[in-house]
Amino acid sequence: MCELLGMVASQPADVQFSFTGLALRGGQTGPHADGWGLALYEGKFARVFLEEHPAYSSPLAKFLRENPILAQLAVAHVRKMTRGTACIQNTHPFVRVVNGRHLVFAHNGTLPNVRKRPLRYESALGDTDSEHAFCVILEALRERFGPYYPEDPHQLGQVLFELGNELGQDGVFNFLFADGAHLFARCGDSLYSTVRKPPFGEVTLLDAEVSMNFGDHQGADSTLRMAAVATKPLTRNETWVRGEPGTLWLFKNGDLLDTWAPAPGYVEASPQITPAP
Amino acid sequence: MCELLGMVASQPADVQFSFTGLALRGGQTGPHADGWGLALYEGKFARVFLEEHPAYSSPLAKFLRENPILAQLAVAHVRKMTRGTACIQNTHPFVRVVNGRHLVFAHNGTLPNVRKRPLRYESALGDTDSEHAFCVILEALRERFGPYYPEDPHQLGQVLFELGNELGQDGVFNFLFADGAHLFARCGDSLYSTVRKPPFGEVTLLDAEVSMNFGDHQGADSTLRMAAVATKPLTRNETWVRGEPGTLWLFKNGDLLDTWAPAPGYVEASPQITPAP
Repeated sequence: MCELLGMVASQPADVQFSFTGLALRGGQTGPHADGWGLALYEGKFARVFLEEHPAYSSPLAKFLRENPILAQLAVAHVRKMTRGTACIQNTHPFVRVVNGRHLVFAHNGTLPNVRKRPLRYESALGDTDSEHAFCVILEALRERFGPYYPEDPHQLGQVLFELGNELGQDGVFNFLFADGAHLFARCGDSLYSTVRKPPFGEVTLLDAEVSMNFGDHQGADSTLRMAAVATKPLTRNETWVRGEPGTLWLFKNGDLLDTWAPAPGYVEASPQITPAP
Repeated sequence: MCELLGMVASQPADVQFSFTGLALRGGQTGPHADGWGLALYEGKFARVFLEEHPAYSSPLAKFLRENPILAQLAVAHVRKMTRGTACIQNTHPFVRVVNGRHLVFAHNGTLPNVRKRPLRYESALGDTDSEHAFCVILEALRERFGPYYPEDPHQLGQVLFELGNELGQDGVFNFLFADGAHLFARCGDSLYSTVRKPPFGEVTLLDAEVSMNFGDHQGADSTLRMAAVATKPLTRNETWVRGEPGTLWLFKNGDLLDTWAPAPGYVEASPQITPAP
């Protein structure tokens, strides 16, 4: 398995604090030692930093913590491989260009059968179920919207929600999907979110004895809002809302814009499938 | 204008030496101060590092010089903008996924009219003529080969050669195009190549008083071969072959595999166009 972190704010913000917590799980406090990745949006363009080595000891991850890049939208991932090998092409997040913007995707869980689904246009660089699932999503979007990316995120969310629950019936499918403005976050079996807004109190990372006041740290004015999503809560003394399996959240500018809830009794993963631990 | 550097070797090698010379031109010894980019292949996957700031003072470029990543194929670019603005989405090299591999493209010159060519499937993230030209190339490859990437680089080279000369009639089109195994290099008006092989002598950068023996530095055995291509020679005491306008070179594993030469009398840029200085 692996861990995900997504962040979307009302203005460019420093993701250093949250990434530090995630990076420590990349081999030091957690077992997620097979690679890490960080996508930082600047408008519709995502810079993506990837390594197939543990995040906590990575010179590049250290460099990024020490030379933070401000971003309004970010997706990070640390990986414990369950499918595929530890190599750069299997490292999340994955990125593609669609209609003049980068789309970024990261997955937690396993979808053991998704690679049986044929791809017509998209192709995977690596051999993970996760990247293949991203390609399946991209082809579904193309089928639904043609070469254009939908302006209305609620239209897009509906497709991601339905496809998420379809693929999630055959595995575990926690994912983050970002498009430069919006962060879509699907809970398969474990996803938490928190919204940070002024007044910022001191929050403490669960993985390190680090405390920080967001108000000070972000140099933020009173309008900053920041939504964070993670497979496990990253901090103490913040309220993390646990997602219900099958739920899709849509965040923008630090706010929760929309929620898609599954039918009552939805259960992730078919009984025939034993998800990886 | 801007400067290009491509490198392809018979085994993973350290591109630090050549990139140092190029990075110094990014604002210190040259006027190319509007951004830089470096793509390093690991198999069919390209890690791409981009910044819209000068390379010579960039902490990230410094980090990459100090923590070199071995690569068998690399494309680098420093940019002095002639079209578009200095922002991350206008920074070369550009990258797309085609049939399970990253394709990487960088351009030197200007193609003032290329953006009039419509795109059907591909789309640009930025507003440069260069990225649009890359999209035109990708669509031409799709038209010619369908969703498959041609196994035969000579087939691919023929398309790049013909399209290069077609687009080059309307501007200046020095470019590098890489696919994980091959480096295609087109000379519009200025492109030089050199092939390095044992015994390695000491070479000296033109832009800094740095000397280095490749044999020592690469930890290379006697089989290392390395081809380098650049818009201007980067070193003294190496032989750089000047390309003829309209020529396309194909390199693999440090060797020149093929050359496409234009018809006698080929002149880059139509008389109606005044290329940017």
